[in-house]
Amino acid sequence: MRYDFTSDNTAAAAPEAMEALARFNTGFTSGYGTDVVTAQAADAVRALIDCDADVRFVPSGTAGNAVALAALCRPFEAVLCHEHAHVITDEAGAPGFFGQGLGLFALKGPSGKIDPAALAEALAVEEDSHKQSAGALSLTNATEYGGVYTAEEVGRLTGMAKAKGLPVHLDGARLANAAAAGFDITRLKELGVDIAVVGGTKAGLPLSEAVVLFDPPLSRRFDARLKQAGQLPSKGRFLSAPWIGMLESGAWLAGARHANAMAQKLKALMPFEIVHPVQANAIFVRMDAAALQRLHDKGWDVHTFSDGTARFMCSWATTEAAVEEIGEALKAIA
Amino acid sequence: MRYDFTSDNTAAAAPEAMEALARFNTGFTSGYGTDVVTAQAADAVRALIDCDADVRFVPSGTAGNAVALAALCRPFEAVLCHEHAHVITDEAGAPGFFGQGLGLFALKGPSGKIDPAALAEALAVEEDSHKQSAGALSLTNATEYGGVYTAEEVGRLTGMAKAKGLPVHLDGARLANAAAAGFDITRLKELGVDIAVVGGTKAGLPLSEAVVLFDPPLSRRFDARLKQAGQLPSKGRFLSAPWIGMLESGAWLAGARHANAMAQKLKALMPFEIVHPVQANAIFVRMDAAALQRLHDKGWDVHTFSDGTARFMCSWATTEAAVEEIGEALKAIA
Amino acid sequence: MRYDFTSDNTAAAAPEAMEALARFNTGFTSGYGTDVVTAQAADAVRALIDCDADVRFVPSGTAGNAVALAALCRPFEAVLCHEHAHVITDEAGAPGFFGQGLGLFALKGPSGKIDPAALAEALAVEEDSHKQSAGALSLTNATEYGGVYTAEEVGRLTGMAKAKGLPVHLDGARLANAAAAGFDITRLKELGVDIAVVGGTKAGLPLSEAVVLFDPPLSRRFDARLKQAGQLPSKGRFLSAPWIGMLESGAWLAGARHANAMAQKLKALMPFEIVHPVQANAIFVRMDAAALQRLHDKGWDVHTFSDGTARFMCSWATTEAAVEEIGEALKAIA
Amino acid sequence: MRYDFTSDNTAAAAPEAMEALARFNTGFTSGYGTDVVTAQAADAVRALIDCDADVRFVPSGTAGNAVALAALCRPFEAVLCHEHAHVITDEAGAPGFFGQGLGLFALKGPSGKIDPAALAEALAVEEDSHKQSAGALSLTNATEYGGVYTAEEVGRLTGMAKAKGLPVHLDGARLANAAAAGFDITRLKELGVDIAVVGGTKAGLPLSEAVVLFDPPLSRRFDARLKQAGQLPSKGRFLSAPWIGMLESGAWLAGARHANAMAQKLKALMPFEIVHPVQANAIFVRMDAAALQRLHDKGWDVHTFSDGTARFMCSWATTEAAVEEIGEALKAIA
Repeated sequence: MRYDFTSDNTAAAAPEAMEALARFNTGFTSGYGTDVVTAQAADAVRALIDCDADVRFVPSGTAGNAVALAALCRPFEAVLCHEHAHVITDEAGAPGFFGQGLGLFALKGPSGKIDPAALAEALAVEEDSHKQSAGALSLTNATEYGGVYTAEEVGRLTGMAKAKGLPVHLDGARLANAAAAGFDITRLKELGVDIAVVGGTKAGLPLSEAVVLFDPPLSRRFDARLKQAGQLPSKGRFLSAPWIGMLESGAWLAGARHANAMAQKLKALMPFEIVHPVQANAIFVRMDAAALQRLHDKGWDVHTFSDGTARFMCSWATTEAAVEEIGEALKAIA
Repeated sequence: MRYDFTSDNTAAAAPEAMEALARFNTGFTSGYGTDVVTAQAADAVRALIDCDADVRFVPSGTAGNAVALAALCRPFEAVLCHEHAHVITDEAGAPGFFGQGLGLFALKGPSGKIDPAALAEALAVEEDSHKQSAGALSLTNATEYGGVYTAEEVGRLTGMAKAKGLPVHLDGARLANAAAAGFDITRLKELGVDIAVVGGTKAGLPLSEAVVLFDPPLSRRFDARLKQAGQLPSKGRFLSAPWIGMLESGAWLAGARHANAMAQKLKALMPFEIVHPVQANAIFVRMDAAALQRLHDKGWDVHTFSDGTARFMCSWATTEAAVEEIGEALKAIA
Repeated sequence: MRYDFTSDNTAAAAPEAMEALARFNTGFTSGYGTDVVTAQAADAVRALIDCDADVRFVPSGTAGNAVALAALCRPFEAVLCHEHAHVITDEAGAPGFFGQGLGLFALKGPSGKIDPAALAEALAVEEDSHKQSAGALSLTNATEYGGVYTAEEVGRLTGMAKAKGLPVHLDGARLANAAAAGFDITRLKELGVDIAVVGGTKAGLPLSEAVVLFDPPLSRRFDARLKQAGQLPSKGRFLSAPWIGMLESGAWLAGARHANAMAQKLKALMPFEIVHPVQANAIFVRMDAAALQRLHDKGWDVHTFSDGTARFMCSWATTEAAVEEIGEALKAIA
Repeated sequence: MRYDFTSDNTAAAAPEAMEALARFNTGFTSGYGTDVVTAQAADAVRALIDCDADVRFVPSGTAGNAVALAALCRPFEAVLCHEHAHVITDEAGAPGFFGQGLGLFALKGPSGKIDPAALAEALAVEEDSHKQSAGALSLTNATEYGGVYTAEEVGRLTGMAKAKGLPVHLDGARLANAAAAGFDITRLKELGVDIAVVGGTKAGLPLSEAVVLFDPPLSRRFDARLKQAGQLPSKGRFLSAPWIGMLESGAWLAGARHANAMAQKLKALMPFEIVHPVQANAIFVRMDAAALQRLHDKGWDVHTFSDGTARFMCSWATTEAAVEEIGEALKAIA
């Protein structure tokens, strides 16, 4: 079975990440992220987003998001997020677990992007002590449906949240893809993001996400928060070193550009109806069960969604040859 | 500053782990631990402990322990553990966080090993609905003070717990060192352990712990438990591949043997009073603040404990030369 | 402003409850529900439902439900309940708080009653470790929309749940009204209910709900569970005594019969469209904002729902005169 | 068996409380503490403490404390409290449950009063991300061992906490007894208390504690916090009305004065060694098991503590005759 297009986490780690893992695997360092490798990686992330912010590296994006939301909200509050946001659909209730019952309010909008009118409506709900009230806004860029917010679109939503006193979380599991599509990641703080979880894993690291804290009070005792949450492994350099390799080489962004380009290439070959604009590295198409079975029979694993769409996901590792091969397979079964 | 003896997590990853990381970093695999690399690593762990058990790989030992304890107990119960157990002293309250207030009862005993009389006393406490009651027993082997339980000693404690209906957790962060010291790890299930967290990180992996479930009902929905707890990273092979390298080569055990031997070598050179039997890879000595400062001034970082002892920890990576160098330094300051 | 029809918790306590409060307010008793008054009240509840079950009295129905659901499910599971169930709409996330992120899956069905087809669909969902899975079924009788399940309807739903191994919770905040409408409350255990929260407050007690545990293992350490959850007040007799008064006199059921009858009387006078069958003590009608304002201007407070309906709720204390008065007011503004 | 001296929660409710319960049990009111009775009771509490603060009434003191501590701390922090504080010894882990693993650090000091040196030591502990750090100070007045802090003593401790930025919680389950002993309860805010849980139950109410919020930001969404925590019963007047009766009549304080006086009377008759100063309504004596058994055989239930002391607790309802009777019994068995 081929998993090339199942997700962008089926890929191996990029050579630049593996090289750095090996390069920094020498001698003894202090533990729990206090080491010089982690400090250097944090500097590299700050350079990437051109902002003085606190940076931590965690093994799990799900945990990164959940810890961030728990830091921004209290249990009797709820996070405003897109109805198809990863935090609501694919994290087995992690925000509620880390946030002790913290709620999630699902907002609508095209291709995973929150409709400002839906946000306005949610923000206008009168508070009622029998219900959880909006405690934070969570955005995802690039979105779960391959959409990319512009900085202006992000700013509009965060501005609405900030006007109500709500902090903002950004799930940036695919922020590299958004950056490659033109989203200016040096404006995160200016746009009002309080915590961003910047994706490493889907960008080519073995596994590591960067939690970026833009609001200094949030940093207080954050290491204890991470330790308690099981997100502060002792050998911190193995989470951070790959970031050095990916960022100093430019591979983080270059890999995302490649992934986005491969999605465009596959789009050109796609015989099935494409149901979302292809702005990042994903293509969503309408295929019936029979077609999916035929594709499966040809040896290709594809992730399907509950709405009946099938997702073809490209990554830094997607080859032109693979795109052509699956393009052939799709043509044959269409 | 030299961190050679600060902890066994200051070491780099062993070559056998790094080789396997590189070896399996090829092509595409399915995600979240469903991949063939993870399956192969789980087989290797089962072979190591010679038992048919469910195996998962998690990035954090703290989380591994906390998830295990939360699976065994309910919030109004408490875990019986040694007063110096890692779960009680160094995890920032993780068991209470994952277990929603789950308590920890501290038992006494020499060198981190629970005194059977202390356990008997704790088990004999009359239940009182105003207090948390004993919900599970947690053992650590090798212990935080470098002690090693024999199988008989473990069996005596687990037998007492089982007689009261309590399940048993084993914190095996240094199980390799215990194994190298003669503890028979193929008897874990027979001895009554329900969940063991088998250490990889301190044994030479970059970061990964194996959660081993001996009691089939515990496995139900365990992946969802891990996902919700932020312990199911997508690129599972990077947690599992190093296990293959370490276990197929025998490096997991060989490294621990080396670490234990280095501790014996350092013991022979140690001019300060050794306060615990050196059974695994740690040496605890009594040094006053002035002596510690002199050692620090010579460039050696050492971890000190609240009781005033200083710990010298050896690992797979500890060199004979380093032992001799710190031996010289200690001699000079004694 | 008159609150006669705002809810059934705006009423005073019934004379039979107050009389018992006073009657048992004498001398000294042991605390935390170990007293003889509480034992007598528990016997009375067992007689009411004609079943040998464990009974506890708690001050809050929200907490009673949440503690029950937390006892039946784990955090990575979810409760199947009606989309308008009180646990999902009006408890500020209490099940998730007590259940540490426990999820709630909303099922559709007419007038607050779960459609068996919707339940079947939910039970047929393939398990996915990235999502919470069904952990329990929660029913409400009488429902939030004034519907009443028959025993057969309950049995059909619980049977489906039990066939999948799921335990069942019954929110019986208005079980007296269901009983008055013909639901046989002596069949709860036989029908497969594992925990029922039998309502006292809305039936005329000052404040108290009976948590009834039908499955003996659930009772283990349940007092500690309640104590930890802040639901085991020291002066237990003040939660239990009113039950004695209400049950020995028959007022619990008689009050509900009266409430249901008053709802029928108001139904006969109602000039607005009634949108749910009036089976218990509530009438839901379609009124526009202007009409509601006119009613409000006439001094009547009414609870409105997000779907635009207005609820008129009767209780043991609703007088014929009040029904006629609001009937007049409604006629005048229609 | 007689429970007169087992605790101060074995007593009935005072006539003034019962009268008010009956007096306000008329007509319909709005629910969930929005009613005029609750507003009047809150005014009465504000008058009692002579301070403009937010007041809520909850059924459980355990929950009142736990909700307060969860409002003041985060899960990776810990509450500094006396080693014999009720929150640590008798609430089945409620602070950790409501605070999602929130820790409790036990401080020493005579008769339940925190030794300032012990507090200073705890506040001086260097922060370590592997451990929970001090997040709040919790005091109890009167203490679990019948001690009473003076305002100056409270101010000294709160001053130390405030200098470190820590908020302060006061467990006032027996604040009436402290007030009767001379503690000036109109100085709570000035002394630096952020949340006080003012005891009603032990002062003669059926069951109700007043949560007093002195710091306005804490009040934000506090009703939702209470609702989610199962501490916002619908018929709020039954928690608040007794406060009106007890405060307008002066019975709250008068009953405590009586209880304290009865303790002094019993002290004068006590043939066993008294081990704590009798400053409020409790007497702690050293009795061996045989003596306790003899007292038990004479029909008196007494609460014993793990340190082997026996507690004799007086309340508003303790009669002179009962004191004399138990005095006789004690004399007979001594």
